Amino acid sequence: MGKILVLNGPNLNMLGIREPGVYGTETLSYIESLMKEKGEALGFEIDFFQTNHEGEMIDRIHSAYGIASGIVINPGAWTHYSYALRDALGSVSLPIVEVHLSNIHKREAFRHVSVIAPIAVGQIAGFGVHSYELGLDALVRHLQSK
Amino acid sequence: MGKILVLNGPNLNMLGIREPGVYGTETLSYIESLMKEKGEALGFEIDFFQTNHEGEMIDRIHSAYGIASGIVINPGAWTHYSYALRDALGSVSLPIVEVHLSNIHKREAFRHVSVIAPIAVGQIAGFGVHSYELGLDALVRHLQSK
Amino acid sequence: MGKILVLNGPNLNMLGIREPGVYGTETLSYIESLMKEKGEALGFEIDFFQTNHEGEMIDRIHSAYGIASGIVINPGAWTHYSYALRDALGSVSLPIVEVHLSNIHKREAFRHVSVIAPIAVGQIAGFGVHSYELGLDALVRHLQSK
Amino acid sequence: MGKILVLNGPNLNMLGIREPGVYGTETLSYIESLMKEKGEALGFEIDFFQTNHEGEMIDRIHSAYGIASGIVINPGAWTHYSYALRDALGSVSLPIVEVHLSNIHKREAFRHVSVIAPIAVGQIAGFGVHSYELGLDALVRHLQSK
Amino acid sequence: MGKILVLNGPNLNMLGIREPGVYGTETLSYIESLMKEKGEALGFEIDFFQTNHEGEMIDRIHSAYGIASGIVINPGAWTHYSYALRDALGSVSLPIVEVHLSNIHKREAFRHVSVIAPIAVGQIAGFGVHSYELGLDALVRHLQSK
Amino acid sequence: MGKILVLNGPNLNMLGIREPGVYGTETLSYIESLMKEKGEALGFEIDFFQTNHEGEMIDRIHSAYGIASGIVINPGAWTHYSYALRDALGSVSLPIVEVHLSNIHKREAFRHVSVIAPIAVGQIAGFGVHSYELGLDALVRHLQSK
Amino acid sequence: MGKILVLNGPNLNMLGIREPGVYGTETLSYIESLMKEKGEALGFEIDFFQTNHEGEMIDRIHSAYGIASGIVINPGAWTHYSYALRDALGSVSLPIVEVHLSNIHKREAFRHVSVIAPIAVGQIAGFGVHSYELGLDALVRHLQSK
Amino acid sequence: MGKILVLNGPNLNMLGIREPGVYGTETLSYIESLMKEKGEALGFEIDFFQTNHEGEMIDRIHSAYGIASGIVINPGAWTHYSYALRDALGSVSLPIVEVHLSNIHKREAFRHVSVIAPIAVGQIAGFGVHSYELGLDALVRHLQSK
Amino acid sequence: MGKILVLNGPNLNMLGIREPGVYGTETLSYIESLMKEKGEALGFEIDFFQTNHEGEMIDRIHSAYGIASGIVINPGAWTHYSYALRDALGSVSLPIVEVHLSNIHKREAFRHVSVIAPIAVGQIAGFGVHSYELGLDALVRHLQSK
Amino acid sequence: MGKILVLNGPNLNMLGIREPGVYGTETLSYIESLMKEKGEALGFEIDFFQTNHEGEMIDRIHSAYGIASGIVINPGAWTHYSYALRDALGSVSLPIVEVHLSNIHKREAFRHVSVIAPIAVGQIAGFGVHSYELGLDALVRHLQSK
Amino acid sequence: MGKILVLNGPNLNMLGIREPGVYGTETLSYIESLMKEKGEALGFEIDFFQTNHEGEMIDRIHSAYGIASGIVINPGAWTHYSYALRDALGSVSLPIVEVHLSNIHKREAFRHVSVIAPIAVGQIAGFGVHSYELGLDALVRHLQSK
Amino acid sequence: MGKILVLNGPNLNMLGIREPGVYGTETLSYIESLMKEKGEALGFEIDFFQTNHEGEMIDRIHSAYGIASGIVINPGAWTHYSYALRDALGSVSLPIVEVHLSNIHKREAFRHVSVIAPIAVGQIAGFGVHSYELGLDALVRHLQSK
Repeated sequence: MGKILVLNGPNLNMLGIREPGVYGTETLSYIESLMKEKGEALGFEIDFFQTNHEGEMIDRIHSAYGIASGIVINPGAWTHYSYALRDALGSVSLPIVEVHLSNIHKREAFRHVSVIAPIAVGQIAGFGVHSYELGLDALVRHLQSK
Repeated sequence: MGKILVLNGPNLNMLGIREPGVYGTETLSYIESLMKEKGEALGFEIDFFQTNHEGEMIDRIHSAYGIASGIVINPGAWTHYSYALRDALGSVSLPIVEVHLSNIHKREAFRHVSVIAPIAVGQIAGFGVHSYELGLDALVRHLQSK
Repeated sequence: MGKILVLNGPNLNMLGIREPGVYGTETLSYIESLMKEKGEALGFEIDFFQTNHEGEMIDRIHSAYGIASGIVINPGAWTHYSYALRDALGSVSLPIVEVHLSNIHKREAFRHVSVIAPIAVGQIAGFGVHSYELGLDALVRHLQSK
Repeated sequence: MGKILVLNGPNLNMLGIREPGVYGTETLSYIESLMKEKGEALGFEIDFFQTNHEGEMIDRIHSAYGIASGIVINPGAWTHYSYALRDALGSVSLPIVEVHLSNIHKREAFRHVSVIAPIAVGQIAGFGVHSYELGLDALVRHLQSK
Repeated sequence: MGKILVLNGPNLNMLGIREPGVYGTETLSYIESLMKEKGEALGFEIDFFQTNHEGEMIDRIHSAYGIASGIVINPGAWTHYSYALRDALGSVSLPIVEVHLSNIHKREAFRHVSVIAPIAVGQIAGFGVHSYELGLDALVRHLQSK
Repeated sequence: MGKILVLNGPNLNMLGIREPGVYGTETLSYIESLMKEKGEALGFEIDFFQTNHEGEMIDRIHSAYGIASGIVINPGAWTHYSYALRDALGSVSLPIVEVHLSNIHKREAFRHVSVIAPIAVGQIAGFGVHSYELGLDALVRHLQSK
Repeated sequence: MGKILVLNGPNLNMLGIREPGVYGTETLSYIESLMKEKGEALGFEIDFFQTNHEGEMIDRIHSAYGIASGIVINPGAWTHYSYALRDALGSVSLPIVEVHLSNIHKREAFRHVSVIAPIAVGQIAGFGVHSYELGLDALVRHLQSK
Repeated sequence: MGKILVLNGPNLNMLGIREPGVYGTETLSYIESLMKEKGEALGFEIDFFQTNHEGEMIDRIHSAYGIASGIVINPGAWTHYSYALRDALGSVSLPIVEVHLSNIHKREAFRHVSVIAPIAVGQIAGFGVHSYELGLDALVRHLQSK
Repeated sequence: MGKILVLNGPNLNMLGIREPGVYGTETLSYIESLMKEKGEALGFEIDFFQTNHEGEMIDRIHSAYGIASGIVINPGAWTHYSYALRDALGSVSLPIVEVHLSNIHKREAFRHVSVIAPIAVGQIAGFGVHSYELGLDALVRHLQSK
Repeated sequence: MGKILVLNGPNLNMLGIREPGVYGTETLSYIESLMKEKGEALGFEIDFFQTNHEGEMIDRIHSAYGIASGIVINPGAWTHYSYALRDALGSVSLPIVEVHLSNIHKREAFRHVSVIAPIAVGQIAGFGVHSYELGLDALVRHLQSK
Repeated sequence: MGKILVLNGPNLNMLGIREPGVYGTETLSYIESLMKEKGEALGFEIDFFQTNHEGEMIDRIHSAYGIASGIVINPGAWTHYSYALRDALGSVSLPIVEVHLSNIHKREAFRHVSVIAPIAVGQIAGFGVHSYELGLDALVRHLQSK
Repeated sequence: MGKILVLNGPNLNMLGIREPGVYGTETLSYIESLMKEKGEALGFEIDFFQTNHEGEMIDRIHSAYGIASGIVINPGAWTHYSYALRDALGSVSLPIVEVHLSNIHKREAFRHVSVIAPIAVGQIAGFGVHSYELGLDALVRHLQSK
């Protein structure tokens, strides 16, 4: 049974609290349960993780090397500047799916650019919690098509 | 039974012929059958359309006003400059989901910017034919959540 | 009795439907009747036309060559990128008046630049339906002053 | 009987002298008489003013607060940099119509941007002295439509 | 006997009418006869086409797939923004030669950039009607050298 | 007993009238009384001045040369373009504290840049009338620390 | 008795050591004692914190949610790139006052832009240790005015 | 005997006081006497003027229309943004020589651009008081060569 | 019998050695013989020259003044920065045809801009050695059409 | 015996695993042994450290204050955005040598700019593991030359 | 008797031939005689030199080290890109006066920037041959004032 | 015994004279002797060359084709604009090491960009004369590792 990392960047622990008008009212643990359930249905174990520490996120990604089958990541605000995160994702030779709760392409200008996208298979943005589910679908399909 | 438009911009009729290394080998009629099947399963009639004419696309979008429940669109190269298409999509007050076969955010610089995204619910890019299926899922879920 | 073309670009057929908060509630046929009436009063026949097809607009402009006395045009979203439309307007050696329902200079940044303006006599923007009437006045006065 | 300010920025006192090829041969006092006549016909008293002093223009605008019904302004070269003038016009809560003798959108690049436009109802440019008349029409119609 | 498409973008039907100071006085049908004669001499059938409709141009290009040996195209104003045309030309896997009547590199700044050039074999600009003849020479030589 | 200039740029005389949602409802004379009271408490005479005339402001600054101990200035919209004001403040060799009622760094982009800041000790922005009091505190402390 | 967080970003632990010509000779613990004393006088408990770890800072901000009344923060070099910190500050719905020891607007160009400012009440920069005291005053006044 | 205006923009009255390291220790009245003496020697009456008020400068320039033979101007900081001053100088159809005490091309970046230069015969910068003398020489020689 | 200069900029002596994948395997002396033969056929003497020294190239161009009928030049890397070469070509009042072996518009970004193009009749790029032949054709035709 | 810190930024622990085509196959512990050996030979103790946590890196740099003689640092992806790291290196008043395995000046555009370089003695990039050895040589020579 | 170098960059040997509308009809040898005469009158020997070779110009500048008192240079088109020339002029520790025949600040945009100006005492542009005479005056006065 | 070229661009002959504060006091002949000695120790003959003539440098590089094993080059100011030099270095298919005496990344902005770097193995900057020695080490090691 394969393993998929579902990674969450800074401030996503505040989900359901912070700007619910933009991000919706579901909490991160709700997303975790959704993902685990869906992962199981698809035949994958979900390793769900959130951190506000860039270094912890990089360490976690490294630790997946040779173990996980792929990564679904919502990089939060790191999306827009963390080249270190980009290089970490690039170093483990795994398919990456980038997801965002909000449609980053219609928010402030700085959110239109993703430094993560160039090393990802694809990007899904704007569908709230459903972005995660779509991302997991996309990754599993990608793994199956190889 | 609701209706969903699945719209395809310029050159997508060449799918399976043009740069298969980038876009895959499936043809557009294969995508149409996939979408119709999936639409039926989700309880929606799919109105599938492709054109290389900006004006025809705009007319088609206008004709959906008051009739369709939502639109899944792969705007092709118009994504990057057709403000007329953007305004057409904005004029019909329907939820729009933007899909792309390839991950536009890691191709040539001019493909990183979507003039359509600011009027869309969300964007899905990079998963080949599966981007369409994910887009339909996303739209239906969006319609159900309202 | 001279002839004046009043041309309308993409999505203007949706007038009265699309974003009425920005563009007002009058329809395009109401504008047509206003313009025909005012044209008659000023001694000019009005040839009123709308299309969502760039090519049709260019053809129509060409057909006015040697026949019409001038053009009032609301280029809609083409204002901001259609160099083909600009060249068409430049090719018929007629005075051009550019009109806009909304004040494009206070909307999104991409609407601040008109690629049409450099070949126009002048530009009128922001007065709703009245922009058309002012544009017709301006064109007729321009023709009379020559 | 309402009052409308018609304001003229720097160097417009030189009208008829300065670069007649660009601005025409009519003088500012001719424009004043035209505007007063037209204003009277439309039922408005015209308060016509020109200054080369940014501070005097701002003071005049402030003095219209609570007295005038609207402002027609040709800001001259201040159009392109005087944020102080913009804030003055924004401070009196009156409808503003911006007029220009020449089509600023086809002259030097620095003249393409108006810092005044974002606080105006609309902008009219390129019709020589007639721009003023059109501007007055536009303002009166705007006042009547409210 | 091979076939070569000679394609002409928007407003080129106005040749000999529009801005003769810039583009010369020859008409498009004169160019057509020149090209057919020269094509015959070089052993190629010339399929000559002009349209003001982006969609028609794209359709024509697609229809050449598997039939023509190469394309000479004067994309007119589309040169500077039509990524849809670029993708159409890229989709048929044929050698493309881009020609321009005028030297676009010394006209307005927006004409200095060609979005078509990156998918072309080469570009010829500035020699009036002769640009077409040179373009045909260049294409035939390119075909022969393979 | 030292003297401190408190200078106010264009449109600040409209305080309490203009855009109260942004600038608050207190008037400039209220600020003057606050500053005089606070100045006295701190052992400084306050010379309070407002003008809409760039030249008058420069003259006033020059007249402080060799007389005042420092300057608190709210340059209003001049903040963003008046290099003449900057040079005037630079010419008198006095400590300058720049204050703003609103947080200029979160308003329109043109308000993010201050051409005054490079010759100031520091900048305080966003605290309404309190920005002035904080500015006076900051200046007096700065004078005492030398 | 309300609680106010006073947060200090990277390298501020080196205060009094690092570039004293720019930042002064006072240490951070001196600032802490000043702030605690002043806080007590104003009726607020001061929670003083410094870290060089972005993740720890974000965690600390989150932990203030629902507990603290406001935040005074000197984000150090994070001011210029940490969108994660910005989102953390935005997520807790508390008034934020941004302070800087030096006048960032007259140092290197990269220090002129604050990504924190758009979510802050205001910004105070350039007054050395006194910037903190002014920031606390500003925050308390802001809290009292609500 | 011809008349030449020698005009001085904002803050030049502070000459000899302000930043003597940059601008030298001579006062403006010393420059005036130098210029008058040199003017007389060259057969021209010198009309010497300084103001910190943009409007006064524009009025003075206008009043020279039809009377003076030419203008030597040190526009001070207006050099870099006063399009109103540029238009005033352009409106009187006189040869303009632009002078600067310091070499503006090696100071802050904003001082490298002169909005005045495009309407001047030439520019002289960097020779302190001597820039004025060279400017007068240049203007007289220019007048003689016509 | 007229004379035509065929000029070759830096590194073109390395032709056939340097990056044959980009520039082909023909040597410069092969091009020289081609051009001389073709020139003779067209009734022109070819003066063929290559140098890696900007100054020598400029001297050679000057020496053609009043002697040659026109210039075909491949400026090599000077294309992108040598304003001195541009001025030399502009100083001899001869028709200039700019040629390039590769399609400079699809290589590195710095190669997309030609500082030579604005003083040339036209530009031909991308056809290998054939670019030279096309350039000679174009120049001779240009000379004949005058 | 002096001490030299050799610091390694994010993802360098993955050396020998990540993109060996770009970075080579040696591991970080191999580099550590090389450096320790070479350090000993040069008379310096090497303190070798790697972290993926910006905050840990900053803490380590601070702890070297007053103890180490200099720093050799490969900042990894932080090179391009971590102003916090820059300030940390600037705060300890030690000579810094910046090294990179790959030639960052010929990779993606974002890697061409180093925010660390302005506070370093020098930079060495492109020589794989040898960059470290050269960096240590450079630092020791720098220390000896003082 | 001191020595002054008067240096002339590329294409200035063509003076009187090249674009006389812009540069006037005097030849370079006429300028040389003027300068020698004027130099003698001022007590300086003039070493007059022109070259189209950047390297020769640099060599000549180096050879003046320790011998000449100053340099008057018209760098021609090198003004805009030759950092090598800039460094040469900076290497000899002599006062440099930069002169231009035309007013470079009102010609093409690329001519508005001088890479030489930052190492010059001052710049004189726009007065034709007289620019040289003014430049010599300026340099001699500069030498005398030290 | 292999041969290595050590090349020196413009103004490096002035070493020890020009701006010794930036570049140190050692002369170029001192560097030559250092390099020859070090080269001999490493088993390579050093061909040391300096020129102020771009063309001579290019010729010298070409002459190394097929003879030398590699090149160490300090391109001086050509680093920032000489695409001709870049192409020359690219044409000989030899490993290139770029060295600079000063840390170009912390000097004027124009010195931060190297047009040479994209064709070099690596770059070493900031270590004075030692940069050359490090560069030779780096090149020899690079040659040995192949």
